[in-house]
Amino acid sequence: MDSVDKYFEAVEQNQQQFIEALREVVAIPSVSGDAARRGDVVRMGEWLQARWEALGATCKRVDPGKQNLHGVELDLPPVILGQYGDDPSKKTVTLYGHYDVQPALVEDGWETDPFTLVERADGRLVGRGATDDKGPVLGWLLCAETHKQLGIELPVNLKFCFEGMEESGSEGLDEIIIAEADKWFKGTDVVCISDNYWLGKSKPCLTHGLRGVSYFHLVVEGPGADLHSGVFGGTVHEPMVDLVQLLASLVDSKGRIQVAGIYDQVAPVEAAEERTYDALDFNHAALVGDLKSDVVIHADERDTLKHRWRFPTLSIHGVEGAFHASGDKTVIPARVRGKFSIRTVPNMEPAAVAAAVTKHLEKEFSKLGSKNRMEMVETHAGRWWYSSPDHPNFVAAARATERVYGVKPDLTREGGSIPVTLTFEENLKRNVLLLPMGAADDGAHSTNEKIDRRNYIQGIKLFGAYLHEIAATDLAA
Amino acid sequence: MDSVDKYFEAVEQNQQQFIEALREVVAIPSVSGDAARRGDVVRMGEWLQARWEALGATCKRVDPGKQNLHGVELDLPPVILGQYGDDPSKKTVTLYGHYDVQPALVEDGWETDPFTLVERADGRLVGRGATDDKGPVLGWLLCAETHKQLGIELPVNLKFCFEGMEESGSEGLDEIIIAEADKWFKGTDVVCISDNYWLGKSKPCLTHGLRGVSYFHLVVEGPGADLHSGVFGGTVHEPMVDLVQLLASLVDSKGRIQVAGIYDQVAPVEAAEERTYDALDFNHAALVGDLKSDVVIHADERDTLKHRWRFPTLSIHGVEGAFHASGDKTVIPARVRGKFSIRTVPNMEPAAVAAAVTKHLEKEFSKLGSKNRMEMVETHAGRWWYSSPDHPNFVAAARATERVYGVKPDLTREGGSIPVTLTFEENLKRNVLLLPMGAADDGAHSTNEKIDRRNYIQGIKLFGAYLHEIAATDLAA
Repeated sequence: MDSVDKYFEAVEQNQQQFIEALREVVAIPSVSGDAARRGDVVRMGEWLQARWEALGATCKRVDPGKQNLHGVELDLPPVILGQYGDDPSKKTVTLYGHYDVQPALVEDGWETDPFTLVERADGRLVGRGATDDKGPVLGWLLCAETHKQLGIELPVNLKFCFEGMEESGSEGLDEIIIAEADKWFKGTDVVCISDNYWLGKSKPCLTHGLRGVSYFHLVVEGPGADLHSGVFGGTVHEPMVDLVQLLASLVDSKGRIQVAGIYDQVAPVEAAEERTYDALDFNHAALVGDLKSDVVIHADERDTLKHRWRFPTLSIHGVEGAFHASGDKTVIPARVRGKFSIRTVPNMEPAAVAAAVTKHLEKEFSKLGSKNRMEMVETHAGRWWYSSPDHPNFVAAARATERVYGVKPDLTREGGSIPVTLTFEENLKRNVLLLPMGAADDGAHSTNEKIDRRNYIQGIKLFGAYLHEIAATDLAA
Repeated sequence: MDSVDKYFEAVEQNQQQFIEALREVVAIPSVSGDAARRGDVVRMGEWLQARWEALGATCKRVDPGKQNLHGVELDLPPVILGQYGDDPSKKTVTLYGHYDVQPALVEDGWETDPFTLVERADGRLVGRGATDDKGPVLGWLLCAETHKQLGIELPVNLKFCFEGMEESGSEGLDEIIIAEADKWFKGTDVVCISDNYWLGKSKPCLTHGLRGVSYFHLVVEGPGADLHSGVFGGTVHEPMVDLVQLLASLVDSKGRIQVAGIYDQVAPVEAAEERTYDALDFNHAALVGDLKSDVVIHADERDTLKHRWRFPTLSIHGVEGAFHASGDKTVIPARVRGKFSIRTVPNMEPAAVAAAVTKHLEKEFSKLGSKNRMEMVETHAGRWWYSSPDHPNFVAAARATERVYGVKPDLTREGGSIPVTLTFEENLKRNVLLLPMGAADDGAHSTNEKIDRRNYIQGIKLFGAYLHEIAATDLAA
């Protein structure tokens, strides 16, 4: 029996103790979006730091500064940096996770108190943060603790970065990662983040791509003030009429972006990529179930995934400045601001995307013959992230997955963004792996959030197996 | 010197006293939209009732019941019905006006306290309610009082209906007019309402038409809940994308309604009507000044007026259910409700308008190929009003105007609606005249509301002259 098998056996034996540990951290209501809970967030960070220090880790608590939350000035919760082992002959794996959680109230529809972990007969461990992201963050700690109990030396050095503001915009985090890239994080060989989910409910995955997002405000204005539609309707160019024409020109109901040049920037689907969709754990029935309505555009499940992962999409979010309350109001709004965003994919460049959108809108606006004024503002541009699943970091994780679950992991991408991924990659200049622990139906930001006992326990095994595989991998290969 | 000339002379002599009376009523802050001012609204109604009763009128105070204003239960202010004179040999004129006012705060940009009447060197009498509608309501009272002082018998019987909720939806008024049509208002020969404005700043007018308004909600819904655009963008039919396509199909930037059949319902412009636009006191420079921006669609001033008065127009007011706050949010709203309305004109029928709009939207929606659901709801349909300016009521008012101002009045229509006009016409089955006292630039609902001394004083003359002309007119002619 090798040391990994011994570790697996100990994890099996420690299951109940691991669940008790999860119960202990779920009970700390570290809701970063609630000023009244800020003390609990800090307490959760301190809990983690104390437990890693008890194990022998060196920690540094970094305070990112102040925050103004709905008019209340608060200290931002600390970022806990840690180092566990510093053997120069070993590789160093840097971990990221977050110890804050989404808000949760029984009134929202929880079947049980959200901050009391409940194990259901079907194996669900229900509680706020169980899967996002306390289970995974705890998983790394329990992995290291179990190794120590067994007297098995961890085969790699660990560094870690656990923040308490992920659910509230990770305020202050990027600056710390940038500042510590060549200091605390110096010597990192690979990065691993466990803060996303499987594609389905049964099959593990590794995630190697995220879409970027460019967010735009389209402002149309004309009259000096809001007007009464009785007096002015039909005699002035209405900004809202122009705005809906412009928004309607951007995308059709089937999601096809109408902006010239956008699809030219998209990397083609090669045959090798096409094959990766063959074995994925994904089906439309589950999607329609999630949506509670069949409003799925694509008949083929592969097309659905491609449009989630690797094609750009354009969504219209709303309008600021127009009448938005209930009831009837006969106003002609003087200045309206349409909000839309484009999810970007390889090889789209934010500047080229913004240029194409601006050119398109200016052309469409000139067709209207309006005397109103139009302005296009890009308010945010986060880049996409793509990593080859052939990188040794992913190969090591795939081997670890196969050892724990007995199947090759799905190789997935995600439609949303996890900005810290790019921050680590760009500043540490090391490969980043997304290694999820939970399943697609965990309900991370929803009521009755859970992690399945299977995912939690096998996930702790997976983390250990991954560290052993990394130790055995030639990263230069 | 006939009795009208004597009356005119007395009005000239009483000017300062009339301004003091206006000062007294402006000082009562009868803001119907402010729960804290409800007592002042009632006090204003009681002031009017007492003063008419002191003159010898018989009044009846009708309490329309209760109102829920932002969660506060309030008594609605009384509708003051009155009768002054009941000589069966005289005609009876029924007057309508309102004694409540719009809100006004110095912080909104008033140069002086809004509830203290200030006379400016240029003749402006500045104060909330000066023109809307305390000046005109007081004008009728001062006209009757002046006659009495002069010992000149009013040549007609008066009935009146003064309400205190006009600025807040005239709650409860229609029911009272309907209930009293054959009781209190029995015997009415003509109705006169002074609650609108001249077309310009210098030339008096009579108003003989108003547009109707049909208000629509266009609901598009699909997914069971709001979605994250990262995960679902590009894979589901987005309700907001469908909604902007549908709204964009309704009208173009130049105000041309795209709904098939709408313009077929519109009465053609006859040569006689065309000529009425010749002498109107209206110019684009003033309009652009009001708008603080040249966003006027039509180059020709006649076209502007026709599109305000006698052509239908479609305005898009806003969207309920989408993201409307400031900032960026990457939501795909599950259910959105677009709000638009059509201003209607002779001979459009609300049912035919709604049918044409529904047919158009169903056709456009089917073109989208969307799996979302669409629903069109007509939330309100107020009819247009049109009265021939050749009716003896208007001819009498035109003669009175010429006697006071030395010019033939403009014959105008308005783009908005004054619903009480139709309520009186339909229930009393008598001709209704709109006889404005104030000018286009009075700023009725704005800061620094004013009535010019000229309009106020000549307006009081006009009211008297009109009553004498009505007495001398054969209404059956």
